[in-house]
Amino acid sequence: MILIDINPKNKNPLYQQIIRQLAALIDSNSLRPGDRLPATRQLARQLGVHRSTVVRAYDELLALGYIHSQQGGYSTVRQKQKLATSSKQHSKTYFRWEEALSQSAKQTIDKIWTPGSINKNKHQLDFESFDLDQRMIPVETIRKSINHALCDEGADLLKYGPSAGYYPLRKLIARRLAVHAIKVLPEEILITHGAQHGMDLVLRLLTNTGDAITIEDPTYGLFLPLTAAHRLKVHGIPMLSTGMDLDVFEKLIHDQHIKLIYTMPNFHNPTGITTDQHHRERLLELCVKHNIVIIEDAFDEEMKYFGRVPLPIKSMDRQGNVIYLGTFSKVLSPGMRMGWIAAPTPCIDAMTYFRRALDLSSPLPLQAAITRILRRDDFEKHIQRLHRAFRQRMLAAIKTLRQNLPAQVQWTPPSGGYLIWLTLVDIPLTEHRIIAALNREGILVSPGSRFSVNSNPWPCFRISISQRDKDEIINGLKLLCNVLKQLYGIAPNKD
Amino acid sequence: MILIDINPKNKNPLYQQIIRQLAALIDSNSLRPGDRLPATRQLARQLGVHRSTVVRAYDELLALGYIHSQQGGYSTVRQKQKLATSSKQHSKTYFRWEEALSQSAKQTIDKIWTPGSINKNKHQLDFESFDLDQRMIPVETIRKSINHALCDEGADLLKYGPSAGYYPLRKLIARRLAVHAIKVLPEEILITHGAQHGMDLVLRLLTNTGDAITIEDPTYGLFLPLTAAHRLKVHGIPMLSTGMDLDVFEKLIHDQHIKLIYTMPNFHNPTGITTDQHHRERLLELCVKHNIVIIEDAFDEEMKYFGRVPLPIKSMDRQGNVIYLGTFSKVLSPGMRMGWIAAPTPCIDAMTYFRRALDLSSPLPLQAAITRILRRDDFEKHIQRLHRAFRQRMLAAIKTLRQNLPAQVQWTPPSGGYLIWLTLVDIPLTEHRIIAALNREGILVSPGSRFSVNSNPWPCFRISISQRDKDEIINGLKLLCNVLKQLYGIAPNKD
Repeated sequence: MILIDINPKNKNPLYQQIIRQLAALIDSNSLRPGDRLPATRQLARQLGVHRSTVVRAYDELLALGYIHSQQGGYSTVRQKQKLATSSKQHSKTYFRWEEALSQSAKQTIDKIWTPGSINKNKHQLDFESFDLDQRMIPVETIRKSINHALCDEGADLLKYGPSAGYYPLRKLIARRLAVHAIKVLPEEILITHGAQHGMDLVLRLLTNTGDAITIEDPTYGLFLPLTAAHRLKVHGIPMLSTGMDLDVFEKLIHDQHIKLIYTMPNFHNPTGITTDQHHRERLLELCVKHNIVIIEDAFDEEMKYFGRVPLPIKSMDRQGNVIYLGTFSKVLSPGMRMGWIAAPTPCIDAMTYFRRALDLSSPLPLQAAITRILRRDDFEKHIQRLHRAFRQRMLAAIKTLRQNLPAQVQWTPPSGGYLIWLTLVDIPLTEHRIIAALNREGILVSPGSRFSVNSNPWPCFRISISQRDKDEIINGLKLLCNVLKQLYGIAPNKD
Repeated sequence: MILIDINPKNKNPLYQQIIRQLAALIDSNSLRPGDRLPATRQLARQLGVHRSTVVRAYDELLALGYIHSQQGGYSTVRQKQKLATSSKQHSKTYFRWEEALSQSAKQTIDKIWTPGSINKNKHQLDFESFDLDQRMIPVETIRKSINHALCDEGADLLKYGPSAGYYPLRKLIARRLAVHAIKVLPEEILITHGAQHGMDLVLRLLTNTGDAITIEDPTYGLFLPLTAAHRLKVHGIPMLSTGMDLDVFEKLIHDQHIKLIYTMPNFHNPTGITTDQHHRERLLELCVKHNIVIIEDAFDEEMKYFGRVPLPIKSMDRQGNVIYLGTFSKVLSPGMRMGWIAAPTPCIDAMTYFRRALDLSSPLPLQAAITRILRRDDFEKHIQRLHRAFRQRMLAAIKTLRQNLPAQVQWTPPSGGYLIWLTLVDIPLTEHRIIAALNREGILVSPGSRFSVNSNPWPCFRISISQRDKDEIINGLKLLCNVLKQLYGIAPNKD
């Protein structure tokens, strides 16, 4: 006889008490597969309950997979499917995931690189990372903004937000863009999970497998795997010291249909080059003539700390073929994953519908927090603080490189932003050997091949000053120059 | 002579003062296109500065597009590209965005529906929205968690996070899943921007254009446009009162190659049906045999307020072919956009690399906040509070429908969750007419066609009780039943 004890005073219904106890007996192996349960009538009598209570409990145990109904009307304990353990505890999983991957995933994973392949420690001179210096992130401003937003707006910020983004934020971004001579309506802004997500959305909205697109060569390192994800045909246009070679671009678009071009006119990643007004106008003119969409990646628009730079291409977009990508990652906080797309309303409207199917919307509490930062003077003050710091830092970097770089190294001093690009002309060493020599001295830089479509004629690498202060920059770059001198066979400076 | 006034005590460099004033003269049309600037030597003498200062200012004005260099060495004001105005102020944009859209975007936008097509007001009885009742969102718990996380961890939460997610959160989700008998390691969890984003990631990782997949028919309304975004061939398996018809599924997979199946075993959206243990085991067995990936959407796993339900399919996944999707949207807050994928490590590893190219990572501050909520008892207490509320609400809904629905209406009382599905057998009216009749009485429900691949034999609609309290449910559903009685030609209840 089965030992079950029910209590009518217990707030759980009687049938659930029966289920719980029988399930526990089965789970603990006190009742084993094949064991016969008492007939419902018999158990009801034993427990002093109505038979329908026991029938209901048995029905649920059946649904839960604990018992079988046998012919003849009685029930037996069922051999339950064994539970899985986590796959690492298992010696292996049987399903072959590598064979299940899509073409898009395979090609992307082939092209992706991960930062920090060597162990970073704080003693190292990290000129590789392009993350904003943590010391410059306005933690308290951000914390208070989120907190106050949730205090004031409460549950309204914790429900689903609109797919195009939180309207007050769209409005303030439109207003902020006017500072850079870009005139757009709030309806021409869509909030993204950062610029990378913006790029992905644009490529999803506009490209089909096999479409041809144009990029600067070298270009942003994570744009290349993204083009692989979309299975695009990529044409790289060589970068000159004045920006991409527009003669090459013009010839290319004469010869074949190009859907779009991805460009970074300010403080280009990785070369640091800023194109002039004329270059921007000619690029726009060519794209208008040939019906090509321009993706203007303005990740560093706010970092014009050396004074005026030419107008954004978007500011001259009278035909409506320019999509402008912005982000808060390079000036406020990358961890908030907040960026935006500015584009003509027909484009934003289509993207809004499309995006609803892909991930619904961006998180409201963080959108509301940034709205507060933009609304008050906080953002402007923070940008001025960044400008003061990075003007100093970049000046120090340029001066140090001017004084110490071997003459064979080619570079263009940047007019803002965080990035410097060095080309090691006439060096008889591979990129790998040069990077390794720098690493041995604790210096981290980004290898040029990470950014290039076609191989570079000479080894190149990117220096980012985004994480280092003035002294670290001076000491680090002096050491870097000494390593390069050694590699060129020049006696190093002593100091 | 041009009026320029420079001040050596001003902290801006002299050349920048010259640039600023000349640019202002040009911007204000005091200098017009074609006007000649003074020679550098002459202006230098006038201002009492070194000539190189003026040369530098002219060089920058050239780059900024303000002036031309003419043959003969002098400079003239340039006709600058006119700035664009926002596209709505323009009568039209010239670029034809509708022709530029990808196949994927076009097909998705065709299939997408937007909620709230009629104006909602608070007097309406909204059984359409499936958002969590705002009154049940633990605003203070969430606000404090974000605030404390940022107080304690500061800038560490505002930098880029790992692509797979914040490790402490992955760990606690793995621990929470053990409550539902799912044993996974933290490394088998990837954090997403909600379940919709999880679905999109899985389809991107695993499917190519034209692949065949299987879904329940009806299914989650926003899964259908997502399959359009991926351009998949979709086979709908009819839902019976016990879950999808596995005989039909078995026949289908005998006849053709199916890549994956998307299923919601608990409190299915839209039908509210929960499959039993045997159904789950048979589905898993069929998929293992035919090498089919199962996407188990467990959006409502936590809403088992009527007691035990069968084990998640993932808990029995010994072959490693089950991908489990979870979300905090239906129990905590949809506005935080937080969900996760649980899958074997080879799948999660590939997804982590792939995701890096798509949107880098999820926002750290919100991940850290949820970690705090899970770490303390907050989450468990909140779930218990939801259980108490929704057990009452669902019991009230079931009782009201049992007492008042016309006999011709077919439905299965749910064993948890938020959703009830009504099929209006033998009614000579279209879905549209029925919805309109309900709308006239202020009742909002979701039309069945929104969820269906193939058309339903009879009009259907979905009732969601997620936003309504007990009294609203009783009154609203009584009214709904009366409208249906009228439509069937039965005298309505008076009370």
